[in-house]
Amino acid sequence: MRPLRPPPIVSVDIVLLTLHQGRLQAALHKRGRAPFLACLALPGGYVHPEEDASAEETALRVLREKTGIQPRYLEQLRTFAGAARDPRGWSAAISHVALMPHEELRQAGDEMFHFYDVDQLPELAFDHAEQIRAAVERVRNKASYSTLPCWLLPELFTLTQLQRTYEQIFGETVPRGTFRSRLGIKVGEMQAGEAADQADILIATDQFQGGSQRPARLFRVNRLSLFKRASW
Amino acid sequence: MRPLRPPPIVSVDIVLLTLHQGRLQAALHKRGRAPFLACLALPGGYVHPEEDASAEETALRVLREKTGIQPRYLEQLRTFAGAARDPRGWSAAISHVALMPHEELRQAGDEMFHFYDVDQLPELAFDHAEQIRAAVERVRNKASYSTLPCWLLPELFTLTQLQRTYEQIFGETVPRGTFRSRLGIKVGEMQAGEAADQADILIATDQFQGGSQRPARLFRVNRLSLFKRASW
Repeated sequence: MRPLRPPPIVSVDIVLLTLHQGRLQAALHKRGRAPFLACLALPGGYVHPEEDASAEETALRVLREKTGIQPRYLEQLRTFAGAARDPRGWSAAISHVALMPHEELRQAGDEMFHFYDVDQLPELAFDHAEQIRAAVERVRNKASYSTLPCWLLPELFTLTQLQRTYEQIFGETVPRGTFRSRLGIKVGEMQAGEAADQADILIATDQFQGGSQRPARLFRVNRLSLFKRASW
Repeated sequence: MRPLRPPPIVSVDIVLLTLHQGRLQAALHKRGRAPFLACLALPGGYVHPEEDASAEETALRVLREKTGIQPRYLEQLRTFAGAARDPRGWSAAISHVALMPHEELRQAGDEMFHFYDVDQLPELAFDHAEQIRAAVERVRNKASYSTLPCWLLPELFTLTQLQRTYEQIFGETVPRGTFRSRLGIKVGEMQAGEAADQADILIATDQFQGGSQRPARLFRVNRLSLFKRASW
């Protein structure tokens, strides 16, 4: 007969990404208990079958309970599962990626989180470094054909701020003309309330930022829009 | 006090895709037990913590035990998890997508599997229809910038067969010139053992298919290669 083992442990981890000091950074906290006591780790927690309707709800509950924050964007990444990743037993960590403007994150979780460049990570607990690498790959990939980066900005932003956000995610300069044409923005022609194009990528507000000299119009994102991919 | 609930159930489901009758099809079987008795469903099974080192190994074991097959390509899709998807309790199904040439699949699992067009699915058990939709989206997306479709063909194939495979995945015609230039193939110039380009996308063999009149060279894929994406 096979020896009986305890059932798999099911938890949720969250790769919480933000832009800080012009770089894409991950929010990490110091673990307060074993295993990996005092190691830097992603926020996460066990699934509570009696209160979480879904894994996404587990992720939202964990962030709410531990930090009081509600991420502007949350999506499931993939599950890191196996016998060796956690000394407590066979475990499945349903990994999520969340995006937040740094200002909101700092206000809520400042005492809890330490921020590290995603390309210069310290030693982390479990397979959390691998989870961050997978999350960054997903975000950089998705940023190349969608409005995902908008969720790293406050609700209202200028087009220049948005362009800088794309550049900070990719770690390289994005030509202004190319940037605006990908987003379907006809500069200078948009009136308040008008969408950037028929796909409603960005909505122009009637608010402006900056002094009386060349104030910049503020925009908000309508929803996660995908750009047209290069097709065959 | 909160009522104690059993721990989450952890299982693996496999969206096994193949090309059959010129269409992308999913392999489904009729469930032999409750819940969803006699409903069509994806192959899948519980994680066995005592023998599966990872979720991928669970997927391979389930396919091996149930059908004797070993998929040519397997990757994790995402996890479908929550309180409502399985009447037995809170469950996490780590969904995978697998690709196989239909001939291999038919030989091994013919008595077990029924094949359905992914765009015309019957009623399925659990959230399996949703899993198939997510898998097809992943495969179509990845096919647009990688050699993924090669794993739906036998080990050796002609360039025309490969072009048809891309077309059947997308459900639309792919111009021959565009197809070959995306794969970096300079037609007529490749010798046996030569790679299609510096990225080693395809390897030309010294074998041919067809009669003495215009025989077509057979190729094999080297590894999963990504094409250069349209960049900013």
